[in-house]
Amino acid sequence: MKPCEAAQALPEMNFAPSPTLQEPMSTIAPIPDPESNPRVKAVFDDIRATRKTDFINNMWRYLAFDTTLLESTWAEVKRVMATPSSIDTLTKEMIYITASILNGCSYCVHSHTAAASAKGMTPAQHAELLSIIALAAKTNQLATGLQVPVDAVFDKA
Amino acid sequence: MKPCEAAQALPEMNFAPSPTLQEPMSTIAPIPDPESNPRVKAVFDDIRATRKTDFINNMWRYLAFDTTLLESTWAEVKRVMATPSSIDTLTKEMIYITASILNGCSYCVHSHTAAASAKGMTPAQHAELLSIIALAAKTNQLATGLQVPVDAVFDKA
Amino acid sequence: MKPCEAAQALPEMNFAPSPTLQEPMSTIAPIPDPESNPRVKAVFDDIRATRKTDFINNMWRYLAFDTTLLESTWAEVKRVMATPSSIDTLTKEMIYITASILNGCSYCVHSHTAAASAKGMTPAQHAELLSIIALAAKTNQLATGLQVPVDAVFDKA
Amino acid sequence: MKPCEAAQALPEMNFAPSPTLQEPMSTIAPIPDPESNPRVKAVFDDIRATRKTDFINNMWRYLAFDTTLLESTWAEVKRVMATPSSIDTLTKEMIYITASILNGCSYCVHSHTAAASAKGMTPAQHAELLSIIALAAKTNQLATGLQVPVDAVFDKA
Amino acid sequence: MKPCEAAQALPEMNFAPSPTLQEPMSTIAPIPDPESNPRVKAVFDDIRATRKTDFINNMWRYLAFDTTLLESTWAEVKRVMATPSSIDTLTKEMIYITASILNGCSYCVHSHTAAASAKGMTPAQHAELLSIIALAAKTNQLATGLQVPVDAVFDKA
Amino acid sequence: MKPCEAAQALPEMNFAPSPTLQEPMSTIAPIPDPESNPRVKAVFDDIRATRKTDFINNMWRYLAFDTTLLESTWAEVKRVMATPSSIDTLTKEMIYITASILNGCSYCVHSHTAAASAKGMTPAQHAELLSIIALAAKTNQLATGLQVPVDAVFDKA
Repeated sequence: MKPCEAAQALPEMNFAPSPTLQEPMSTIAPIPDPESNPRVKAVFDDIRATRKTDFINNMWRYLAFDTTLLESTWAEVKRVMATPSSIDTLTKEMIYITASILNGCSYCVHSHTAAASAKGMTPAQHAELLSIIALAAKTNQLATGLQVPVDAVFDKA
Repeated sequence: MKPCEAAQALPEMNFAPSPTLQEPMSTIAPIPDPESNPRVKAVFDDIRATRKTDFINNMWRYLAFDTTLLESTWAEVKRVMATPSSIDTLTKEMIYITASILNGCSYCVHSHTAAASAKGMTPAQHAELLSIIALAAKTNQLATGLQVPVDAVFDKA
Repeated sequence: MKPCEAAQALPEMNFAPSPTLQEPMSTIAPIPDPESNPRVKAVFDDIRATRKTDFINNMWRYLAFDTTLLESTWAEVKRVMATPSSIDTLTKEMIYITASILNGCSYCVHSHTAAASAKGMTPAQHAELLSIIALAAKTNQLATGLQVPVDAVFDKA
Repeated sequence: MKPCEAAQALPEMNFAPSPTLQEPMSTIAPIPDPESNPRVKAVFDDIRATRKTDFINNMWRYLAFDTTLLESTWAEVKRVMATPSSIDTLTKEMIYITASILNGCSYCVHSHTAAASAKGMTPAQHAELLSIIALAAKTNQLATGLQVPVDAVFDKA
Repeated sequence: MKPCEAAQALPEMNFAPSPTLQEPMSTIAPIPDPESNPRVKAVFDDIRATRKTDFINNMWRYLAFDTTLLESTWAEVKRVMATPSSIDTLTKEMIYITASILNGCSYCVHSHTAAASAKGMTPAQHAELLSIIALAAKTNQLATGLQVPVDAVFDKA
Repeated sequence: MKPCEAAQALPEMNFAPSPTLQEPMSTIAPIPDPESNPRVKAVFDDIRATRKTDFINNMWRYLAFDTTLLESTWAEVKRVMATPSSIDTLTKEMIYITASILNGCSYCVHSHTAAASAKGMTPAQHAELLSIIALAAKTNQLATGLQVPVDAVFDKA
């Protein structure tokens, strides 16, 4: 609904706050039957096969509003996160959690903490991960506040 | 030098940009001989012993302007980063790099990339670390832009 | 309610988490009848006239707790966003969405995505906007992680 | 619940968004009876004594999932925020609110705005605090967008 | 100089990094004689009168590339920062430093730390300010990482 | 050079700050002759052909330390930024500048401001772009500080 239509529907509201939602909200309407689109179905099928689960989480259901965006995002997630490489899968998820916390993405903090737990992150490791992030945030702000000059030995250029 | 003293010293500068520095700058003047303070010396000695090096990087030299801040920061860094725990030391440094990049702390990106290299991070791992951070930044912004609702299965409360 | 009053009202709660809200929360209580203040009414009337709608969204209802803040914020929004200028109105909203996502402001992502849609942003443009933001976030972190030196040709000083 | 268990429990959900929560969510399950752990009880007792209230807010109840993290965090909060020093307690809370807004921490914005109000922050001061933060955000982005060189007189190195 | 012109001027550079600047850089060329524009001169004169100094720092010299932006920014800085109000001037500067550190604006960290020093901030207060910012950054990330639900008593809505 | 080697090379430095660099620094050493690698040469050739210039800016020279990262990053930049689409090329660059400022990436602010200028951004548009970013930063912080609830009419879910 556009704001002006909303206003027409709510003529008595001038002196009180507008109704607010108790439910999660999004900026797009997710597609009702996304897998009727064969390109979406192909991505969802690959997610299920790669992750060995029938569960498709909301991130992919919402990205399905644009098939190209869905395809390119999943292709990159699969290549970077689900392909054996020089960093083990649990470490990858802990790095992802770190970035998600710092980027302030509540959805991603939830989904990647769940993924890390599924990959074996213990409560002790979770607590330690948060301790490192908290310490880094602290020293990062101290260095920025003092504008500490970079030591010459750190340069690789 | 205070701005008003600067102005008095630079009476001819009203119509041109003020001189700007070609050199690294900081917001405090580092103490000339910090280890003449025994509490600073104790911290620096502990850094040298813990890290098995005589090198004291600028972060600690600048933090020495306030002995309490120096002591408490080093104590936490030593406890979290230099004590054997459930996360290996290279992974810890990669998490620290991630936070430092996201917090936009140039000094910390330099110092912790150097530390990770010293602890064995290969160029392939460095590239992969950056790929994960870059991917997370991307999906983090997508989730925030779409305001994707958190799946109920992710909740632990 | 102050924390200590809350504690007195909840003496049995020591061994369980405190009740948490299912509803949206704010840090101030919005004024019940804001337009009884003629300065607030003047701003709300100008918002309605400028936007050609009777709808006043929550941002303005909450800012009304401080009349000066309300007036100065609206004056700047009107001048920058609602005055014909060298950037078209849809582009302005897409820039605003970009900043809002990066600043992690959920409210602003919602309100400006709605505004951009009202000004004609198509789903294809929305998806493309998010693709650009996601790509920028990615390359921004890569450049920060590598600390790439700025090319001399980019300087304008 | 792990994602794969969730999928098994939700076999019919393939063509619709997964259920989403109307309630606040967290990434860990808070401990049901945290004060049965004497180290947790000691921290909670010290919080109550220091703050002169029986109320323990959620931050501490959730941090109790890791006793060391709880103890070290409270020790630092007590030392920095609850010990008489060169900055008065209301100013400290206003600085804390500023950081919390900029770090995008909704929980912390709420808790420290409540704390500042409890310590006497008036609505006028609250509005003015927000005005300063808003102005700083504005000029910060302008300086970054223009990449204004630092004036030599500002250097202390 | 545009990138393509730069390339034509540097035909031998294909196999080596392009020259990089040792000097501070900006994204615009500051106006050589800004006060020949009477509107710029009026702003600069008001800055000098308000601050009781002849010194005009680079921020204003660079903002002078757009007279409207210069005027509106200075008007807001003067109103918020240089007008007696419910928050004292030193506290205002400490709040500004906090926001500048968190927004990662190096220029602003420098200029507002200098301003706070000029207004009487002691080294002890500077260290304490940084300690609060560092602690807030730490607890902010912990609360975001745990997704701690907001306590109902904090709500004002 | 590793920190411990640095320390051995600098035995006299214990009581003075370590030397700091006057020059731009990076966290990796750029490859001396990157185009001797045919995959790097293919990317650089495509950049030259796509952008109609012989100039290869540092971002690509540094990314060449990892061929896969170089290839995947350029492929995405080419697809999103250099392919005709529903958003015009100048608007794309202005969105990219916005994200770069908010992510605090100095390199990216420089390179994309130069790119936008090359694509016709006028000084008036540049000033207006910065005004929108500055205003958004301001209202974003106000909404976060007040924790304004999202209006129900904005929801699309």
